[in-house]
Parts: sequence; C-alpha cells; structure tokens
Amino acid sequence: MSIEANARRIVLAARPQGKPKPGDFRMEEFPMPTPGPGQVLLRVRYLSLDPYMRGRMDDRKSYAKPTQIGEVMTGRTVAEVVESNDPGYAVGDTVSSQTGWCTHAISDAKGLRKIDPNAAPVTTALGVLGMPGLTAYSGLFTIGQPKAGDTVVVAAASGPVGSLVGQLAKIVGARAIGIAGGPDKCAFVKDGLGFDEALDHREADLPERLKAACPKGIDVYFENVGGAIWQAVLPLLNDFARVPVCGLIASYNGAVGSDSLAPTMREVLARRLTLRGFINADFADQMPKFQREVTAWIAEGRVRYREDIVVGLDKAPEAFIGMLEGRNFGKLLVKVDTGKV
Amino acid sequence: MSIEANARRIVLAARPQGKPKPGDFRMEEFPMPTPGPGQVLLRVRYLSLDPYMRGRMDDRKSYAKPTQIGEVMTGRTVAEVVESNDPGYAVGDTVSSQTGWCTHAISDAKGLRKIDPNAAPVTTALGVLGMPGLTAYSGLFTIGQPKAGDTVVVAAASGPVGSLVGQLAKIVGARAIGIAGGPDKCAFVKDGLGFDEALDHREADLPERLKAACPKGIDVYFENVGGAIWQAVLPLLNDFARVPVCGLIASYNGAVGSDSLAPTMREVLARRLTLRGFINADFADQMPKFQREVTAWIAEGRVRYREDIVVGLDKAPEAFIGMLEGRNFGKLLVKVDTGKV
Repeated sequence: MSIEANARRIVLAARPQGKPKPGDFRMEEFPMPTPGPGQVLLRVRYLSLDPYMRGRMDDRKSYAKPTQIGEVMTGRTVAEVVESNDPGYAVGDTVSSQTGWCTHAISDAKGLRKIDPNAAPVTTALGVLGMPGLTAYSGLFTIGQPKAGDTVVVAAASGPVGSLVGQLAKIVGARAIGIAGGPDKCAFVKDGLGFDEALDHREADLPERLKAACPKGIDVYFENVGGAIWQAVLPLLNDFARVPVCGLIASYNGAVGSDSLAPTMREVLARRLTLRGFINADFADQMPKFQREVTAWIAEGRVRYREDIVVGLDKAPEAFIGMLEGRNFGKLLVKVDTGKV
Repeated sequence: MSIEANARRIVLAARPQGKPKPGDFRMEEFPMPTPGPGQVLLRVRYLSLDPYMRGRMDDRKSYAKPTQIGEVMTGRTVAEVVESNDPGYAVGDTVSSQTGWCTHAISDAKGLRKIDPNAAPVTTALGVLGMPGLTAYSGLFTIGQPKAGDTVVVAAASGPVGSLVGQLAKIVGARAIGIAGGPDKCAFVKDGLGFDEALDHREADLPERLKAACPKGIDVYFENVGGAIWQAVLPLLNDFARVPVCGLIASYNGAVGSDSLAPTMREVLARRLTLRGFINADFADQMPKFQREVTAWIAEGRVRYREDIVVGLDKAPEAFIGMLEGRNFGKLLVKVDTGKV
C-alpha cells in the first residue's frame, strides 16, 4: 500500500457570479493526515459530480448549509481504507463517503457505507445504485406514482437520474418520454435505454414536438430542469398530474427568472396538480429496497446506465462547469486516484 | 302553493374584461317551466355566490367548461320542490341543487340532495355544511394534514372556507393564523372564531407581521388568495410544509402576474414543499363524514359560521362583484324568494 507524501483537495476560492469559472476553485496540497482513535484514513478513488453542488457554492440558505470560502467542495466519493483505527473497517475495504473533492480524508466512520466491489462496479455506488439512483427511484415511485398506461416525461434524460426515471417508468408499464440535448444523447435515450420517445431541446418547437409525443397528455413530469422545459410541459399536464421537483438546473447559474408565477399556480389549481420538492436524503429509508430492486433489474438487463469518467482531480472544476451546461454524457465521475485501478 | 307567472334568471351577457361590471350580467324573464316525466320543478330559495364563478365567466379551459354568453350563471342553490313527477321527491321537500342564478328550474333529480330543514338552517347547506365547508375540511385534512403544534395560515379567513380552515386547525391542536381585510373582519376571526392571531392585509408590513405571528414558521398554508399574500408566506414555510391550493382570488380579475416563478420553485425544492391544487368535487366521497363531524362540532360550539345574506336575485351581480373585492363579510348568499321564509 503506497501512500503519497501529500494529499490534495479542491476548495471554494470564490462565490461564482452566474456560471462558475475555473478561478472559483483552488487546488491545495495538505500534509497527509493521520487517523486518530476510532478513525480511518481514506484514499479517494472516484468523486461524483452532481448539479446540487452548484447550490452549495452560493451563500444562500437551502436544505444544506453553503460551502464556505476556503472549505473543501462538497461531494460523495468511493474510497479505499488505507489506515484504520476502527475495528469495523479493514485496510483495503471499499466505502462510499462524503469526503468532498480531495485525494485523502479522515473519517470517524460515521456516514461510511461499505461497498462490495465484487457485486457491481464500484462506480455504480455513486450513480445508478447510489444517491442519483435513489433520487430517481424514490421521487418517481413515492411522488410521481406512475401507473400502467400513464405518460411520464423527464428531462436531462441521458443523465443518471433521468435515465433511471424513464427506465423505471417503463418497468411499471408507463410510456416514457425523454428530453435531452443533442442527437447523440437522444439516440442513446431512445435506442440505448428504451424510452418511447426522445426529444432534443436544442431543436426548435419543443412545445409542439412534446405535444405530439404525448397525445394523451402528461401524468408525471419529473422535474430536473425548470425554465423553458417546464413551460413546454405545463400546458400538457393532465388533471391530477404529479410533479416530483428534483432539480432546477436551468436556473442554478442564476439566469432565467422572467417566467411569471401566475400561469403555473393557475394550472396547479385548475388541473389539481401536485408539485412536491424532495431530496434523496428524505427517502434514505428506501435505500435497501431500492438497491435490491435496481440491482436485480440491472442483472436482468431491464436497467442500463452510462458513466462519463474524467481522469484526475485537477479536472474536476472543468468537468463540473461543463456539466452545468449539459456537456457530460451519462453519470459524471472523476477518477481521483490516477495511480492504480 | 303559489307559483309566480314568470320565472327569472341571470345570464352571462358579456365576458368581463378584468373586474366584472353590472353590464356583464342580464336578468331575463322566462315562462314558468313545466316538469316532464321523472322531473321536478324547483323554486329557488337561496343562491350561493362563490369566487370560483369568476373563472367560469372567462373563455378558458379549466376544471369546468366556461359559461357561454347567454347561458344562466352557474351556481348552487337551496330550493323547494313545487311540482314533482319523481316519486322520490314530494312537493315541499327542500333540496340542494345546481340550478344556477334563477328563481325556478327544472331538474331530473340527478344531482339533487335532500336537506332536512329541521336539522340545521337550510342556508348551511350552501356554506359551513355544504361545498365551502367540504372544501375547507378535505383540503385541510387530506392535503394540509396539520398536526398538533403545527402553524396553519389561511387568508380570506372570515369567509366560509377560511373561517372553517382555522377552526378545524384549532380542533386538531394546531395554531391558526388568519389573514383578512379590515379591523372588523380581523376582530371576528380572532375573537369570534378563536384563531390565535388575525392579521389585516390592508395594513402595511404584512410580511413582517406574519413573521412575528409565526415564530416557528408555517407548516400548512391553505391558499385561497395568491399574489402578495403568497409572497409573504413563501419565506416562512418550513421544510415539508403543505400548501393546499384552493383558490387564487387575487388574480381572478386578471390583475397581478408580475411575480416571478423562480423563487417559488426554488423553495418548493429547497424546503421540499408540497403544492397541491384541488376542488371540493375531488373529495365528494368525504361528504358524509364531513357533515357528521362538522354538524357535531357546530352543536358543541367548536365551529361557528357567519353568513352575509343579500335579498333579491337582482342584487346578485352587485353582491358578486363586491365579493371579488372582499366586500362581503361571511358566507355570501342571495335570498332569491323574497316572498316567504
């Protein structure tokens, strides 16, 4: 077991004004930490990059407190135990942890979750079998409640949440309509994942094309995006439609904001819509059932997933900035430990 | 049994531009109709005036189809059977019916509901024990789900829906905060109905006063109004707050609309709010339980109600126009049969 002399981490250097830029992040070296009693030293193998992180960069109260200037960027990782003072963890164990954007971290073992590297690729613990997967599963089934024959629409459909939402909708017998950016992603959503239709939001006339793809209206709209896509969806929602509100990536960089509230509220009333916000932590108790079911569906070939892996912690800021513009294709991960597989 | 020679009705004369004006309505005489086989002739005693009627005057698809120009205005009434060709109804029976704004109507007995005039004043069938009451009961309990210790806020709190929402909240042990227009209504809400606080939305600084009245935030906001009151409520909503969306009277006359959608959606996500629209017909199956419980609470003095009765069908347009500006005080009814009690 070789341990580098110095560890590295990426901290928040400045609060972004609109789109984050590379200078809003700063790489730091720090002395390799030593675990105290009951602690373990983790070497990070993969870092998950997710849209919610953009919210933490702003100084605004939300469901989690903002990252402070100079603090390590928030993030969930897959890591290996390289030193252990906790009898529950052995050197070599693979775990999922909330270490943030770094190469090494100390953990007191709270919040660690052991991963069996023989059961599935370890990266799935950050994607289809991890928090993004649970987000799709719990939001769709608990809030969206699709029934056979329903029409389910999801945007960011080639991403880790959207791709699972559509496939789960198909499993319960609903029609799945995906919205994604560009022909390659749309081809993947329709042909690779088996959605009934995939619509490119970069092409003109999305409202008309969405209407044509949903001749019986929309029963569940899984909201990842907001903005123009919500405006296209709103007139098509059926009575009693359910809208799990999972993300609003269109507005995370602060653009948007000109849409008026009144038409949305009018439809909430007239169509008796349910809009319900959630984060995956609200449904942490569903994790075991989710993992059991989705693992089986992957084994049966009924659920597929796609990963977009960037190599090197130093590439994380650029990859993250690109993700906010839809430049990733699949679950975005950073392979942090470039030395070994 | 005296039957007038001619019957009268009020029809939609023109679609309102913004606020309705008297010329948007027209009184018509028509020959006294004769019931056919299986039908009854009804003499209307009381007409209920409700905010939802404003929506029917616009040519816009909603949960119900618009009233056409020249058609009788929609409305629920308490009526007396004056001729009957249906063995299920005797002359003299009191019923609740959807006759619209008129003195007489033919009914094929579908949609009639018998009322026992000895059990409660017949007007309560249009208010606290009728559709407005069911609206409050089902929206609050099924969607709002207040628990003991929760803070429940409702606007239009002296009206038939809001007044019951707050009293039901008190019955389950929640704190009830009412918002109403003017000192008389606020005094009634607090002292007459027993809300914990009543705030006058016509006074300055509603957001600050609402915040002071809700030191633990808001768990349930029963939405009757929209507009500036929603903007005051939004920052105070707690995590997992529930918002039954029952009405949006602030925007029914078409004003408003400058509020941006983005802040509402951001809070839906960050605070994991539930916004759910409904109309009382969605919960028609709760009617028996609702009537049983609320009747008992009225008898025990735990639920009070207030009626605002205008005499004469010809006064209905003016009373309706005034209601949209908050000029009624209590459940607004028109006593249609001016001849007898």
